[in-house]
Amino acid sequence: MTTIDLAVIPGDGIGKEVVPEALKVLGKALSGTGVEIATTHYDLGAEYWQRTGQALSDEDLEAIKGHDAILLGAVGDPSVPSGILERGLLLRLRFALDHYVNLRPSKLYPGVPTPLAEPGQIDFVVVREGTEGLYCGNGGVVRQGTPQEIATEVSVNTAFGVERVVRYAFAKAASRPAKHLTLVHKHNVLVHAGGLWRRTVEAVSAQYPEVTVDYAHVDAATIYLVADPGRFDVIVTDNLFGDILTDEAGAITGGIGLAASGNINPEGAFPSMFEPVHGSAPDIAGQGIADPTATISAAALMLDHLGHTRPARRIEAAVEADMAGRADGRSRSTAEIGDAIAQALEA
Amino acid sequence: MTTIDLAVIPGDGIGKEVVPEALKVLGKALSGTGVEIATTHYDLGAEYWQRTGQALSDEDLEAIKGHDAILLGAVGDPSVPSGILERGLLLRLRFALDHYVNLRPSKLYPGVPTPLAEPGQIDFVVVREGTEGLYCGNGGVVRQGTPQEIATEVSVNTAFGVERVVRYAFAKAASRPAKHLTLVHKHNVLVHAGGLWRRTVEAVSAQYPEVTVDYAHVDAATIYLVADPGRFDVIVTDNLFGDILTDEAGAITGGIGLAASGNINPEGAFPSMFEPVHGSAPDIAGQGIADPTATISAAALMLDHLGHTRPARRIEAAVEADMAGRADGRSRSTAEIGDAIAQALEA
Ligand SMILES: CC(C)[C@H](C(=O)O)[C@@H](O)C(=O)O
Ligand SMILES: CC(C)[C@H](C(=O)O)[C@@H](O)C(=O)O
Repeated sequence: MTTIDLAVIPGDGIGKEVVPEALKVLGKALSGTGVEIATTHYDLGAEYWQRTGQALSDEDLEAIKGHDAILLGAVGDPSVPSGILERGLLLRLRFALDHYVNLRPSKLYPGVPTPLAEPGQIDFVVVREGTEGLYCGNGGVVRQGTPQEIATEVSVNTAFGVERVVRYAFAKAASRPAKHLTLVHKHNVLVHAGGLWRRTVEAVSAQYPEVTVDYAHVDAATIYLVADPGRFDVIVTDNLFGDILTDEAGAITGGIGLAASGNINPEGAFPSMFEPVHGSAPDIAGQGIADPTATISAAALMLDHLGHTRPARRIEAAVEADMAGRADGRSRSTAEIGDAIAQALEA
Repeated sequence: MTTIDLAVIPGDGIGKEVVPEALKVLGKALSGTGVEIATTHYDLGAEYWQRTGQALSDEDLEAIKGHDAILLGAVGDPSVPSGILERGLLLRLRFALDHYVNLRPSKLYPGVPTPLAEPGQIDFVVVREGTEGLYCGNGGVVRQGTPQEIATEVSVNTAFGVERVVRYAFAKAASRPAKHLTLVHKHNVLVHAGGLWRRTVEAVSAQYPEVTVDYAHVDAATIYLVADPGRFDVIVTDNLFGDILTDEAGAITGGIGLAASGNINPEGAFPSMFEPVHGSAPDIAGQGIADPTATISAAALMLDHLGHTRPARRIEAAVEADMAGRADGRSRSTAEIGDAIAQALEA
């Protein structure tokens, strides 16, 4: 028997509602495979912060490092000042666990409604850098609250950080049928960071002659996502551009209720973390109507990362089957969707 | 006779093709109004840079300052290293002429094809800050070309700069039927700049009790643009987020071939500059197939800014009429579209 020692962080809002469904499906997918899941829940999020004044203690961080992987729902609540939980918990984990690859697949499945009139084939994956850029928390405020206030945010990009994620993206592209990589940046304005990204892609591409490479400015990329998403295969981009593009990508492939995300440390030096792209959605929390599909797909990404590819494929197939059945447009509860996908696993 | 002393910068690629059409329409719209246009062409862009090694001389900048307004096509060419013309010419003008309001209306006209299946009513305007943020050119590279390279980009936001554009946006919202303002930022990650933007919107909103205010993270805003664009009336946002959102907004309202933009100094301390949102499009340049509509609409924005609202409205109506006739999907040349809109002015 192999045991996956899983840290579970349901978090806030709908995070708490979708995570149990993913665990349900995981359990079902692994039954009879010789792999089992042992879960440790970490009750982090808004309530914990209200109670303790901290978003993540050093002790919890150390304990989390000991797990094989992390499944996270979503964090953030209106009762907590903006940024505290996002930066203190979610981003702290991504940075402390060196999740330099933020992997976000986008695929439009048959039967799934999309806002696009003629979506065509949509099947790409965004490789978003996860430990640098504008997310590093570098910046500050002087003369706050005065007419002379200045607030800065610094995007930090290193050859070390850019190269490793670009390498990952090329390897990913080489493994896919289309073997195509698009760098998204804004190098005509952000010339310093843009130069580093460009030169890095150029250098690494020499080692992947089979991968075709192109480039799009981030503003143009938002157009392509609605006008010609089929052009994309693998997108590699920085932390902020990746954040923006993957939400738009989620929207065109059925909504971020379906979009899954892996925060990956490819070398396994630290546990990787899997989560839906959506947030805690306070507006619909507590009603049992959140779609758990993204979190269930995140669980499949996790199994993949841990090398359990067969049950990962089975979850994906079950999700796909469930999606195909959605054409009737009937609205289902969170648990009903979880049950349906678990059921589909038996087929 | 009033004369508009207009600086014309066709620029590169399709910029050179669309600007003459806008001048044609302007001439027609003003005939018989007692207003005439005197144009001075500035041959700036890739060729000028190749010839002189500079993107914009101090002399030309001084001369341009003397005009009433500027009409710009587009700049950028593959033969020029990325950033040189964008930063040396376009952004230099925006910054030197203190174009702190970058005004970008988005409206879906009847008959215009959109990639969205159910677009609903789309009619909003983005007020993009134009002189700060990540566009200020602050940043640098150390140890370039080595494994220890670090490249930074600094977003600079000042109370002075944020407040004046937020005030403009509130005034704009107050003048529109829906009276609704959305701040777009990413204040859960970019807490320093985000805090300044939030506090400023809150403070100014006290003076506009009739304007309802909400907030969207930039990633969520890219979703709303495809899933629920009708929720937007006036969006106020920073330079980079505005760049990204207005391209996506252009895409959902018929493509950036239609999207116009004003780089405005509201106080008139310097001439304002009007341009299409699209770039120089080297891929289709020289074929006479670029759509001049965005530049023609930019000319209408210019007339508006200069107080010639009647001919501005007439151009808008002619553009709208031309769009309504597009349902047949017949492709027309740049000049044919310009002619058709000029013709529609006579009706
Ligand atoms: C919650 C927020 C900090 C986060 C991000 O910006 O990365 C989210 O939007 C995401 O994409 O995972
Ligand atoms: C050409 C480029 C510098 C410019 C920008 O980023 O502002 C363009 O994309 C725009 O939106 O006007």
